[in-house]
Amino acid sequence: MPTLLILSSNADEYKKLIQSAQLPELEFTTEPEDCDIVLGEPKSILDLLPRLLGLKWVQAIYAGVEVLMDPASRRDYTLTNARGVFGELMSEYVFGYLLLHEKKIFERQRAQQAKQWDRAESGVLRGKTIGLLGVGSIGAYLAGTAKHFGMSVHGFTLGSESCAAVDTYFHNPDLLKFGEGLDYLVCVLPRTDDTNKIVNSSLFDALPSHAVFINVGRGNAVDESALVAALNEGKIAAAVLDVTQKEPLPTDHPFWTTPNLLLSFHTSAISYPENITKLFIENYHRYIAGKPLKYQVDFERGY
Amino acid sequence: MPTLLILSSNADEYKKLIQSAQLPELEFTTEPEDCDIVLGEPKSILDLLPRLLGLKWVQAIYAGVEVLMDPASRRDYTLTNARGVFGELMSEYVFGYLLLHEKKIFERQRAQQAKQWDRAESGVLRGKTIGLLGVGSIGAYLAGTAKHFGMSVHGFTLGSESCAAVDTYFHNPDLLKFGEGLDYLVCVLPRTDDTNKIVNSSLFDALPSHAVFINVGRGNAVDESALVAALNEGKIAAAVLDVTQKEPLPTDHPFWTTPNLLLSFHTSAISYPENITKLFIENYHRYIAGKPLKYQVDFERGY
Repeated sequence: MPTLLILSSNADEYKKLIQSAQLPELEFTTEPEDCDIVLGEPKSILDLLPRLLGLKWVQAIYAGVEVLMDPASRRDYTLTNARGVFGELMSEYVFGYLLLHEKKIFERQRAQQAKQWDRAESGVLRGKTIGLLGVGSIGAYLAGTAKHFGMSVHGFTLGSESCAAVDTYFHNPDLLKFGEGLDYLVCVLPRTDDTNKIVNSSLFDALPSHAVFINVGRGNAVDESALVAALNEGKIAAAVLDVTQKEPLPTDHPFWTTPNLLLSFHTSAISYPENITKLFIENYHRYIAGKPLKYQVDFERGY
Repeated sequence: MPTLLILSSNADEYKKLIQSAQLPELEFTTEPEDCDIVLGEPKSILDLLPRLLGLKWVQAIYAGVEVLMDPASRRDYTLTNARGVFGELMSEYVFGYLLLHEKKIFERQRAQQAKQWDRAESGVLRGKTIGLLGVGSIGAYLAGTAKHFGMSVHGFTLGSESCAAVDTYFHNPDLLKFGEGLDYLVCVLPRTDDTNKIVNSSLFDALPSHAVFINVGRGNAVDESALVAALNEGKIAAAVLDVTQKEPLPTDHPFWTTPNLLLSFHTSAISYPENITKLFIENYHRYIAGKPLKYQVDFERGY
């Protein structure tokens, strides 16, 4: 019998949602030793890995599964992560901040507080260029929204060119060339060894000074000192960080007070049990039919 | 010979753009008495109406032409206004403020200033309902963007039901029923006698208390005292006003300091000469061919 262990702070909600789907043969357990399937948060799964004796399949409820990538950890199971469910949320987040910037919403608020009728001209997204650092399922969704708003879309990837909404693709060694033409740089990269500090002083130098940088990927992608310097020196106009190298951000970190830097405390896309459960149900049917699962993570590649 | 007078603070730019289109037969003049065509700002045109002896066609560079609607003014010419060019700009503006609200951007900024790692859950547009008070070309564009973000779209119109992106239409006398089901109410109405204070205390009572009201139409549509009361009493959550009854807003007006009320000083959609010129060129070809012009204003209806 397929037996499921749920490891999440929302375990009760997940159990209820999955039960109501009446999946064939599925049983639930709370004993790590008894399960062959785990649905849960990567860190909680990592802690229990040695006790998951019958483990065959892990469905992570997050997109980021880097804690399970350690070569010293077990890799004798199929790992699937959450994909295709965060694009919509990320798109709302990213375009919220893009439009905040173009429509000068903070400036209008300050004008109102000063009782000034400030008719400074707003900017427009239409005609501007957004650069996506990473074009997976989230990047592809962002590209679609950018097209809706009439933007040009540049994409930087290892090699893939599969998203039709990307107008121009860039690959290594053209990262700086990619940066030169951008009004907005949005990092959607996963944490891997290859993405460490890919957003660094060279890239900030390459970006136009009016450019805005947004990171909704992982904090490791950013050279944080270089970002502070770039903002202090006006090399770029602004930055919006949903993720940082250390979370929560230490109280003495310069990001709290760097000018034109906005923090959003890793809230851009949360895992809604309804969405993740749909993913789990689809994969469960594949699992019991012996078919390949969707969104398998490659332990070597790291995502 | 068709002879054009341009009445705009951007007259030089308009002239350059139109000249580069090399329109057949068209001549330019700066003498009001010599022209048969005027392109310009409605107020400037109104001031010169008595001197426009050969006037046949006015292409307004704004959507709002109410200053030319006075029954005591001349109506012996064809008036066309700017349409189909503001939808994109209005859409950027409206969704900027919708996303500002959902993503709690002001709250995150305050948390950052207090050095608090604030992971309060963001809201999502997907699944929410936007109500469009008026569904002309701007409303239709907003409806399309709402659909892109997975929202339900309700529309209140006099009678038309021509926009496929509107899920449910409402008409008189169902204004309050229209209001009941909304998360966002967006007014896109022109100024006419029928739209005066259509957004009043009854409608604020009908809206859910979490609803946000946005006015990108005209200030006359809002009972301003009722709006101040609705916000002070928590009948609605917030309001965003691009337009007000008096502009600039008088310094002693309560809007400056009403809680959860944001002002943007009539900046949501400006007339870009490039866009308006395209409209003019298209209509000019119709004009010299003796065909009906696009976007004719009905002096009786008022828009």
